[in-house]
Amino acid sequence: MSTPTNDLFLRACRREPVERPPVWMMRQAGRYLPEYRAVRATADFLTMCHTPELATEVTLQPVDLLGVDAAIIFSDILVIPAAMGMSLTVDEGVGPQFADPVRTMADLRRLHDVEPEEGLRFHCDALRMTRRELHGRVPLIGFAGAPWTLFAYMTEGKGTKSFSIAKKLLFADPTFAHALLARLADNVGRFLVAQAAAGAQALQIFDSWSGSLGPREYREFALPYMARAAAIAKTAGVPVICFAPGAGWALGEIAEATGCDVLGVDWHTDAAWARGVADATSRGIQGNLDPTTLYASPEVIRERTRQMLAQIDGPGYIANLGHGILPDIPVAHAKAFIETVQGWDSRAHAAAGHAMEVGS
Amino acid sequence: MSTPTNDLFLRACRREPVERPPVWMMRQAGRYLPEYRAVRATADFLTMCHTPELATEVTLQPVDLLGVDAAIIFSDILVIPAAMGMSLTVDEGVGPQFADPVRTMADLRRLHDVEPEEGLRFHCDALRMTRRELHGRVPLIGFAGAPWTLFAYMTEGKGTKSFSIAKKLLFADPTFAHALLARLADNVGRFLVAQAAAGAQALQIFDSWSGSLGPREYREFALPYMARAAAIAKTAGVPVICFAPGAGWALGEIAEATGCDVLGVDWHTDAAWARGVADATSRGIQGNLDPTTLYASPEVIRERTRQMLAQIDGPGYIANLGHGILPDIPVAHAKAFIETVQGWDSRAHAAAGHAMEVGS
Repeated sequence: MSTPTNDLFLRACRREPVERPPVWMMRQAGRYLPEYRAVRATADFLTMCHTPELATEVTLQPVDLLGVDAAIIFSDILVIPAAMGMSLTVDEGVGPQFADPVRTMADLRRLHDVEPEEGLRFHCDALRMTRRELHGRVPLIGFAGAPWTLFAYMTEGKGTKSFSIAKKLLFADPTFAHALLARLADNVGRFLVAQAAAGAQALQIFDSWSGSLGPREYREFALPYMARAAAIAKTAGVPVICFAPGAGWALGEIAEATGCDVLGVDWHTDAAWARGVADATSRGIQGNLDPTTLYASPEVIRERTRQMLAQIDGPGYIANLGHGILPDIPVAHAKAFIETVQGWDSRAHAAAGHAMEVGS
Repeated sequence: MSTPTNDLFLRACRREPVERPPVWMMRQAGRYLPEYRAVRATADFLTMCHTPELATEVTLQPVDLLGVDAAIIFSDILVIPAAMGMSLTVDEGVGPQFADPVRTMADLRRLHDVEPEEGLRFHCDALRMTRRELHGRVPLIGFAGAPWTLFAYMTEGKGTKSFSIAKKLLFADPTFAHALLARLADNVGRFLVAQAAAGAQALQIFDSWSGSLGPREYREFALPYMARAAAIAKTAGVPVICFAPGAGWALGEIAEATGCDVLGVDWHTDAAWARGVADATSRGIQGNLDPTTLYASPEVIRERTRQMLAQIDGPGYIANLGHGILPDIPVAHAKAFIETVQGWDSRAHAAAGHAMEVGS
């Protein structure tokens, strides 16, 4: 396929020089956009995921309306457990639920492995359709949930604050936990490879619930399986981004274990420190403005964005929020963030940094 | 007053040698204890806080039933805003609420400063009564909420996941935010000094919602006011413990800014890393077993506790959970944690560490 017209994002993924950082926002195809809400009014959330025309339409909205430098396919991390045979519902105000949580080896045996172009064909079709409609304007990102986060949803059966069921299982039946996590890692990895084949030019793995584990359990039950999925994904030959919100302390370990190209950085993590980890491990980094900063006035948003850029810009940097954009953010505020990044001069910043080093 | 019979906790606060780590648990006077639930069945939560006999009774329960090495007075962090004039209710299943949130300078002017022995006399009386009834068996800890956490509750008016109201105020009206935070810091500090005068032998400041702020805002709106409260508390001459869950990345900055004696460590923080910060800053450290570990079998609890101790034990160490004990933990599991710490030999551990260093 042809090189995108705006390839800042892919160049940053490879730590190649860029004149300014590329910028996109997690959940950029989302409720804060009136145009998204208009589509959502005609179809429920899962129908939108399952209908390539609708998924494509909302995927393109932030590209058309906000001028972001990358598109990310509209879908959900829970499409994998659903495709493995679980019964997923997403009800208004309740969130995603599985009527049939997986908590035993017998439950695990009832699941089946996924052939992405069969069980997740809707997602691959949406990637193909979006690539066509993008006409190479910006690169397209595919994604999947990481094994630990899927494990937590699949065992709890629904959202949770305490993760008590999932974590009890880790302690009480580690054999089951490792078996389910390994199976998820393989299915996630294959799904990511299929997404690249369908047109995704980069792949992001979201371990949304990394922060539910302390270091001991994160290292045993989350990181190795994110790494296993990433290793499979890497065979597709496109950049892989690993994002583990709530596990900022592990950024260096994530770089080493997963072999990822880009480290996602959450908004709790000190930006200057993350820049240090990225340079020490020769990775790109993506993040990490606190999404609630977009509640501030455009003036304050511009100031805070420039403060972040001064700390974090450098080789391989991709500007983003440190978590998904919140549904009640004014569109003008999202634009203030994006335009501030797009007005930043990375070469001047690098030159100033170099001058400071030389002068000090 | 006389030195407590078991002064392990106070010795650890001062980084003096101990034969084994002292141990207590945040929320140890709580719902997981049937004896607590029996008292709670006779009185609502705020009545328990406001009735020194009841507060004393549940404060003593974990000392009598579990043999913990310190007592912490039963109360709530929101007693300060209530004493400043806000209308606090705590309803079953809803949590604490203020009918009259504080969001403007005019709201702030309606609040009054607290004379602890007047507006918070019930809390001071409970400390005096508990000290008497403890007969010096173990030290008694007083506590208060940190300014940022109180600010968040007072502006939101209730619990929140997004903190959107509180954080919008930080951006939109920093003058108001700093004025309220400063006023809270002074009231928190005076309350802590009064608690020491009433018999508290150590003071803990809980910034429970530290994790709601990214580094930029944490450094501007949370840390300086925890530090201001701690500086006032330090004038009482008893050890001060600062606990900022969700801001483990800032542990070194907290040590420097607050001048605290002991750093509380949350369960997300790597124990070995926290030990390094404690030694680099010559502070005690308290924590940090993941509270959900107590869902595991007693055998696994003992193993995980010993793993934590191997990483974190050393000068000034106080064993604790990394967050409050959860209400559905079996008492036998809490006992497995406490007994494992009490069976640990700090001198053998230190000697083994020294031997390893010499041998390596």
